[in-house]
Amino acid sequence: MSMTARIEQALAQPFSRASTASAPPRLMSAMLHAVFPGGARIRPQLCLAVARACTDDAPALSDAAAVAIELMHCASLVHDDMPCFDDADTRRGQVTVHKLYGEPLALLTGDALIVMAYQTLAHAGASHPQRLAALLMTLCEGTGAPNGIVAGQAWECEPRVQLGQYQRAKTGALFVTATCAGALAAGADPAPWRALGECLGEAYQVADDIRDVMGADQLGKPTGQDAQHGRPSTAADLGLVGAVEHFRQLMASAIASVPACPSQAALRQLVHAESERLLPQSASEQIDRHQAALRQKVSA
Amino acid sequence: MSMTARIEQALAQPFSRASTASAPPRLMSAMLHAVFPGGARIRPQLCLAVARACTDDAPALSDAAAVAIELMHCASLVHDDMPCFDDADTRRGQVTVHKLYGEPLALLTGDALIVMAYQTLAHAGASHPQRLAALLMTLCEGTGAPNGIVAGQAWECEPRVQLGQYQRAKTGALFVTATCAGALAAGADPAPWRALGECLGEAYQVADDIRDVMGADQLGKPTGQDAQHGRPSTAADLGLVGAVEHFRQLMASAIASVPACPSQAALRQLVHAESERLLPQSASEQIDRHQAALRQKVSA
Repeated sequence: MSMTARIEQALAQPFSRASTASAPPRLMSAMLHAVFPGGARIRPQLCLAVARACTDDAPALSDAAAVAIELMHCASLVHDDMPCFDDADTRRGQVTVHKLYGEPLALLTGDALIVMAYQTLAHAGASHPQRLAALLMTLCEGTGAPNGIVAGQAWECEPRVQLGQYQRAKTGALFVTATCAGALAAGADPAPWRALGECLGEAYQVADDIRDVMGADQLGKPTGQDAQHGRPSTAADLGLVGAVEHFRQLMASAIASVPACPSQAALRQLVHAESERLLPQSASEQIDRHQAALRQKVSA
Repeated sequence: MSMTARIEQALAQPFSRASTASAPPRLMSAMLHAVFPGGARIRPQLCLAVARACTDDAPALSDAAAVAIELMHCASLVHDDMPCFDDADTRRGQVTVHKLYGEPLALLTGDALIVMAYQTLAHAGASHPQRLAALLMTLCEGTGAPNGIVAGQAWECEPRVQLGQYQRAKTGALFVTATCAGALAAGADPAPWRALGECLGEAYQVADDIRDVMGADQLGKPTGQDAQHGRPSTAADLGLVGAVEHFRQLMASAIASVPACPSQAALRQLVHAESERLLPQSASEQIDRHQAALRQKVSA
């Protein structure tokens, strides 16, 4: 089975368990809308790729870890899209949850997806209780306070923000959870996989900032939001060319960080493909040309 | 140490772990505001009382279970108070989180408290991994979809609601989690403790409905909200006198359900005290007098 098919199949499981006669139908429908169809599913892919690199001897547990991370990511998107944050109309090319189901259900959908993430881990972890405790901790670290994605989002509500800390928490934390959880689900030491998550997480955020400025996002998100909401941004900090250079360095570090293992080539390929998806070569060349033209204008 | 002191001390622990230099200060402050000072802390009290009845051989784990349940309860209060639900100005006699910190931080505070609940369980559960898996499941069942408190709240967004199901999920579920988690934390079978949680949870909701109609709530919540928001209510369904009678029956069933154990008397005393707190004898006598006067008027 392809990794993508494996992820979609695993994601469907907690929904079939929760879809009982006693479930509120509109809540269930809103939760499905928040998760399907998905985006690139890069976090669960990363989790499973690391699990495979570490033998993947408990595939149901690896699946549960990948699903928990993706559910948590989807929950954060639903809440971030709400009127008190981005007030976004579309996400992944479709109408946002609060636009379709109203604010009360969007709020509850995020909450219910967070709980579903933990429930998925608990369900699969019952037969691997030692690994469950470690997986649980890494999921909490990547999502809550002080350093997880919720804390990252909360930095937007602080009067003074340090860009690196904001980005590490807002995006990087769940990528670190993805690589570490993949190792933990397979009973392996997560430490050698941390750097991969850190580099990819930061690169992801830098690419997001670049696309937001370029105003041509193919990922179904509105652009120009960072400046509009006064959010910290690498593109604003380093300029477009500096941000592209930083992105390239981070991707090179990510590739270099992959530990020696039988899947090293496959993992490097995954990182390379993700790099091209996040910031296509054509887009970064366009920025280079724009910069060259600007230089010519100044010297003329 | 008194049970109340034990709970407050245990509740402070996850906050000292999370209050690092890298934590967003306003988020941490909003989370503290949502949890301290508390209300009656009836759910964690119930959890610890059952743990004690089952020997309480792993007190740090019992504490963690009690804390996780209370954090989850506080998270639900923060989200329920937000403008898209009750739009409440006060809670437990103080200003609500969204009124003091704004909607974005209130949304994130709820999310972060949910994660903190699981993190607290994970932290204490690492040395009792078998019990951790069961505790995790019961916490998820009491909070998420299809039957937990989030699902209960979601019934308010459905066009057709069945009162019993709504109440069981909205309030009852977390009381059932409280009694069952107390048993599980002590390595005991949760089944004999389920009925106690069910009866108390339903009684709690009925008392809440009665107080909402009577318009004299001493718990620091605004009254008349059920009718205003068109919410299902036992008081609207059975009338005030019928609701009071139903409440008394539920409390009697709760007391009768306490299994034979050395702490039976103490547990019954806790239930009795809670009954008086929820619906003081004076208030229910006032309703009886009101009903008698009404009858006299009709027969005159």
